Amino acid sequence: MSQANIMDNEVDIVIGALHSDLTIFMNEWRPVFSRFHLIIVKDPDLTGEIQIPEGFNVDVYTRSDIDRVVGSSTSILFSGYSCRYFGYLMSQKKYVISIDDDCIPAKDNEGSLVDIVVQHITNLTTPATPFFFNTLYDPYRKGADFVRGYPFSLREGVTCALSCGLWLNLADYDAPTQALKPELRNSRYVDAVLTVPVRAMLPLSGINIAFDRELVGPALIPALKLAGEGKFRWETMEDIWSGMCVKVISDHMGLGVKSGLPYVWRNERGNAIESLKKEWEGVKLMEEVVPFFQAVRLPQSAVTAEDCVVELAKIVKEQLGQSYPMFVRAAEAMVEWIKVWKAVRSG
Amino acid sequence: MSQANIMDNEVDIVIGALHSDLTIFMNEWRPVFSRFHLIIVKDPDLTGEIQIPEGFNVDVYTRSDIDRVVGSSTSILFSGYSCRYFGYLMSQKKYVISIDDDCIPAKDNEGSLVDIVVQHITNLTTPATPFFFNTLYDPYRKGADFVRGYPFSLREGVTCALSCGLWLNLADYDAPTQALKPELRNSRYVDAVLTVPVRAMLPLSGINIAFDRELVGPALIPALKLAGEGKFRWETMEDIWSGMCVKVISDHMGLGVKSGLPYVWRNERGNAIESLKKEWEGVKLMEEVVPFFQAVRLPQSAVTAEDCVVELAKIVKEQLGQSYPMFVRAAEAMVEWIKVWKAVRSG
Repeated sequence: MSQANIMDNEVDIVIGALHSDLTIFMNEWRPVFSRFHLIIVKDPDLTGEIQIPEGFNVDVYTRSDIDRVVGSSTSILFSGYSCRYFGYLMSQKKYVISIDDDCIPAKDNEGSLVDIVVQHITNLTTPATPFFFNTLYDPYRKGADFVRGYPFSLREGVTCALSCGLWLNLADYDAPTQALKPELRNSRYVDAVLTVPVRAMLPLSGINIAFDRELVGPALIPALKLAGEGKFRWETMEDIWSGMCVKVISDHMGLGVKSGLPYVWRNERGNAIESLKKEWEGVKLMEEVVPFFQAVRLPQSAVTAEDCVVELAKIVKEQLGQSYPMFVRAAEAMVEWIKVWKAVRSG
Repeated sequence: MSQANIMDNEVDIVIGALHSDLTIFMNEWRPVFSRFHLIIVKDPDLTGEIQIPEGFNVDVYTRSDIDRVVGSSTSILFSGYSCRYFGYLMSQKKYVISIDDDCIPAKDNEGSLVDIVVQHITNLTTPATPFFFNTLYDPYRKGADFVRGYPFSLREGVTCALSCGLWLNLADYDAPTQALKPELRNSRYVDAVLTVPVRAMLPLSGINIAFDRELVGPALIPALKLAGEGKFRWETMEDIWSGMCVKVISDHMGLGVKSGLPYVWRNERGNAIESLKKEWEGVKLMEEVVPFFQAVRLPQSAVTAEDCVVELAKIVKEQLGQSYPMFVRAAEAMVEWIKVWKAVRSG
């Protein structure tokens, strides 16, 4: 498998700590994480010392590190789930893998532990095929290939920039769905990876992702903060917004986005009915956000992810900013983020 | 399941007979097919009496029926795999399911027989979601739903026009792939159905499909005939062409196309290396055909599948006809097909 060519020192695993005691979480992941460098970013709102078991190669960042690096900027917020983005900023590795701290390793249909690092890195290091759909899913997988009718000129594929994994047990549903169907659990392990076609938008979940930081790192941005954002996934939209930015930018740059394997096992917590009043805002925003991202086109002059984010921020401000001030703030955060990203790289 | 609402008399199963002895084929499918009306169309090139076991409700059509109905038209050819299209023409049911005669029922991961009728009809009678990608696959399936971030305004979905099933054992690879990897077999049963996003093109395989004949029947057309077309799937392109026509027309009409379940078990036959000299033409054509279908847009005035086919034929002739005379013939066949389709409907 191609991940064999990836040196352990090309991967950072980033964890946003929304809980101070990570003992169980880390011990569950030990077989998968122990040979990699970990970056743990403590939610600046979280009180209490972070507890991490022995035996990991880990850097922990807290509010004081964020203040030191990001300084006086007020438009980028690293609270709650957004704290992980500070880890993306600090990483110096080619690949970043990011997992929510309420997930543990899943098992596949044969009962074997899923190694998310191996699967994400396989997804990122084998080509993506955004320009034509292959009905047998990932054509580069062992035992698979391109089907009859697939143009030979497209069989080389393109570089994969982002790998979006999935969830068993508590899936990433929104609060209304969870409140309506409290018993709903995802028990179906679909043994497939596919490239999301060019120009098709998807709701990226930040629970279990990996990306090529050198290619698209600057495009993963904590830009959209809901007024009533809370500490449950279904109360956030930062990852959905960020995901559509990366998808539009990947499409523009000729890169691919994959979805499917690997799965994580997601433990349940939170009261969906309590969250409903906060969630409504996010649900409403998507009605504006999705048509915008489906239609937006970036100028040919934008050739790097940094360029693309700055151009995208301009268009967000012009087109979406009219309807909600929240989008103006998102656009400002995007511009500010690129400044900070460049400052960190240059110094 | 929604297929319970579908009366048995709303479904035709169409078989293009490339072999005269269908005894084994029919007996294998008996548990699935016996309560439905079957249409068997004998390849006009095939000699020998068709052999069908007792106990089926079946109409068999042969060369003389084709001559009687289609008359003097020379642009539509019903030989080889294309004979099934005559069955589509003769069907009076809402739904058509079409299976190659070298396939038998597959088994799922639990070892149960796959009922392709139930699965195809479920695909066709539950909505499709072409305008936004749902990472957990078919959101209408029991135990699944739309994930966080999926716009509520798109959760109603649209009508599904076409269901493309898959293959275990011998997958639908082209002759070069089969020749390069003679041992390649598909053993992975991926338990998923997904909507192919709007504007994404796919290589439709005609081996195992179902469609809403009333909505898009006229768009499944035996139009593209390779000069060296033979009696093996990998020597044909009629279904790939037809599939891109249906996809473009479904996108234009706001209908959906699904891919995934159900699987059939496909038996191997043919010598891929022998076929290579014939296949080369089809492989070359795809390099012209795919960019064409990705870019083509139909006029707003085209509101039915019949209108759309006629408009598409005009554009095919103008744009593709310049490079290969084969596309001029395909365009002529498309126009002729709509004439015949309408003539059959009007009595």
